[in-house]
Amino acid sequence: MNEFQRIAKYFKPLAAGFAGALELRDDAALLEAPPGQELAVTTDAMAEGTHFLPDDSPGSIARRLLRSNLSDLAAMGAQPLAYTLITALKPDTTEEWLASFASALKEDQQKYGCHLIGGDSLRASLPHFSITAFGLLPKGQALKRGVKRPHVAPAHYDIYVSGTIGDSTLGLALKLGKEFPELNDIDKAYLIGRHENPEPRIELAREIRGVALAAIDVSDGLVADIGHIAEVSQMQAIIEAPLVPLSPVAKKLLAHQPKLREQLLTGGEDYELVFIMDPREKGLFNIAQSKVNHPLTRVGRLQQGFAGEVQVMDENNRILPLKSKGWTHF
Amino acid sequence: MNEFQRIAKYFKPLAAGFAGALELRDDAALLEAPPGQELAVTTDAMAEGTHFLPDDSPGSIARRLLRSNLSDLAAMGAQPLAYTLITALKPDTTEEWLASFASALKEDQQKYGCHLIGGDSLRASLPHFSITAFGLLPKGQALKRGVKRPHVAPAHYDIYVSGTIGDSTLGLALKLGKEFPELNDIDKAYLIGRHENPEPRIELAREIRGVALAAIDVSDGLVADIGHIAEVSQMQAIIEAPLVPLSPVAKKLLAHQPKLREQLLTGGEDYELVFIMDPREKGLFNIAQSKVNHPLTRVGRLQQGFAGEVQVMDENNRILPLKSKGWTHF
Repeated sequence: MNEFQRIAKYFKPLAAGFAGALELRDDAALLEAPPGQELAVTTDAMAEGTHFLPDDSPGSIARRLLRSNLSDLAAMGAQPLAYTLITALKPDTTEEWLASFASALKEDQQKYGCHLIGGDSLRASLPHFSITAFGLLPKGQALKRGVKRPHVAPAHYDIYVSGTIGDSTLGLALKLGKEFPELNDIDKAYLIGRHENPEPRIELAREIRGVALAAIDVSDGLVADIGHIAEVSQMQAIIEAPLVPLSPVAKKLLAHQPKLREQLLTGGEDYELVFIMDPREKGLFNIAQSKVNHPLTRVGRLQQGFAGEVQVMDENNRILPLKSKGWTHF
Repeated sequence: MNEFQRIAKYFKPLAAGFAGALELRDDAALLEAPPGQELAVTTDAMAEGTHFLPDDSPGSIARRLLRSNLSDLAAMGAQPLAYTLITALKPDTTEEWLASFASALKEDQQKYGCHLIGGDSLRASLPHFSITAFGLLPKGQALKRGVKRPHVAPAHYDIYVSGTIGDSTLGLALKLGKEFPELNDIDKAYLIGRHENPEPRIELAREIRGVALAAIDVSDGLVADIGHIAEVSQMQAIIEAPLVPLSPVAKKLLAHQPKLREQLLTGGEDYELVFIMDPREKGLFNIAQSKVNHPLTRVGRLQQGFAGEVQVMDENNRILPLKSKGWTHF
């Protein structure tokens, strides 16, 4: 099966229903934003060994790849529209593998409302993938990392986070062979599921657009990503560790192994949204919370201080020293 | 130097001047098309060993990568606007290498009028790169591979090609160690230059938009790419080999080695444009030719017949049998 046949069989069906994809058989796709809207564009790559494991299922690779990109769109307040895909596969990749990979993409396309519109393929001894994703948002309403300051600045800004933090890094630890004897099989499946099937916060993105003053998605780790906001905003961030929302499974584990706390705070790939609110706008926050079915939790504040610094405080309001602030590539 | 420092030093300057790039420090970039325009989106990847050689200069890799994408935009009739870049480099890549790579991109950005707006990076034992490029064109005027049929169809359509064909494949052959004793050093440098520094036909794209009935860029090889047009258009293509425009150097070589003809016709990576004209619109063609400073040459015709078939005819109007119709990956 050559490149053209593979595209026709597995990828062309993912472009069906999107006229601008031109059935993946032209030199480029066509994309336009409706009047009053603009496009958000993001690109993320994943390689075996760094971002996924050699025996990860094609479905989980496809989902994490697409969803990590959709999470970036959500962090801008954008709704998914389309994506291009580059696959770099081993020459002996089976058709079964490709079929599962494409089928997972198709399911996610339906779930999140987007289409494949183009791509390319390479041969590689070490498989890797990349997606460039496109989302729509009302012009001028993009949520950025830098805090959009109100005319009269408040004494501080509140930092909120969606869902729970740290499950993904625990799930990855389990996959890498770590044993958590405190956990049962259901707990373990939950954590691995949170790593393999992150949930980009598309709905929340729509609700906090025009309401939140800044946003980022948690990919490098809660501390590092709040640090990105603090840096761009030229403010200091204070995270109150006891406020950071944890799942029941993570809480159970932490009760036995308190030293895991740092890993939860810095582990990354949660794909939750961190967003910044004006504390005086509690009403707007309540409306956003009422529209989504996952918790939104205040975890700290942004304030005047050493620009870009993140301080994590423990339950006694003492600075928690961290060995690592998060995960960086290369 | 970590990922963030590398981005700040080498890539952020490439985003300067494009507000929607948000200085490469947000989750996504923002892109919009002016009223009445739409975006063309294309993505192309290049890997060491398949698309470039281990000792190729960073500048030639950068240029071929960006320009092959801009050539796809040109084939749609679009003008360059922006691009995202994924680099997968060896851990021991030097800063000198990166500086040359970024500097070549900067020169090309100025030459072609586009900006870097995002990206990602991987570590890899085998370096590879990909670009997703964005271009603008008036809404509804995209040049596609399928012939846009006039109300009254002509008996046949003319196939035109820009510039000259086959230099790139000869340049690559030289780089791979092939000796052409008939050529002097200037000839050889010319051919290698044509391979390493292809010229995307951006200006021609603007002139034939709304005039040509279909277009494609020559990346897989003249015969294969005309085959793509024939297939999508459900027509038969006839290429008259003696009409195919060759450079003086290619002609000189062909005079000594007539067997090279097939390689010239099928070698690929010329990044010239093939476009389809209504033979009754000679006036429109003449205007397009007057606006660009490289030849536009009729090389054959599209006609009713076996859909997707390409016949190459020799000087005696006999079918020229080809061993290979072009270059496919994987």
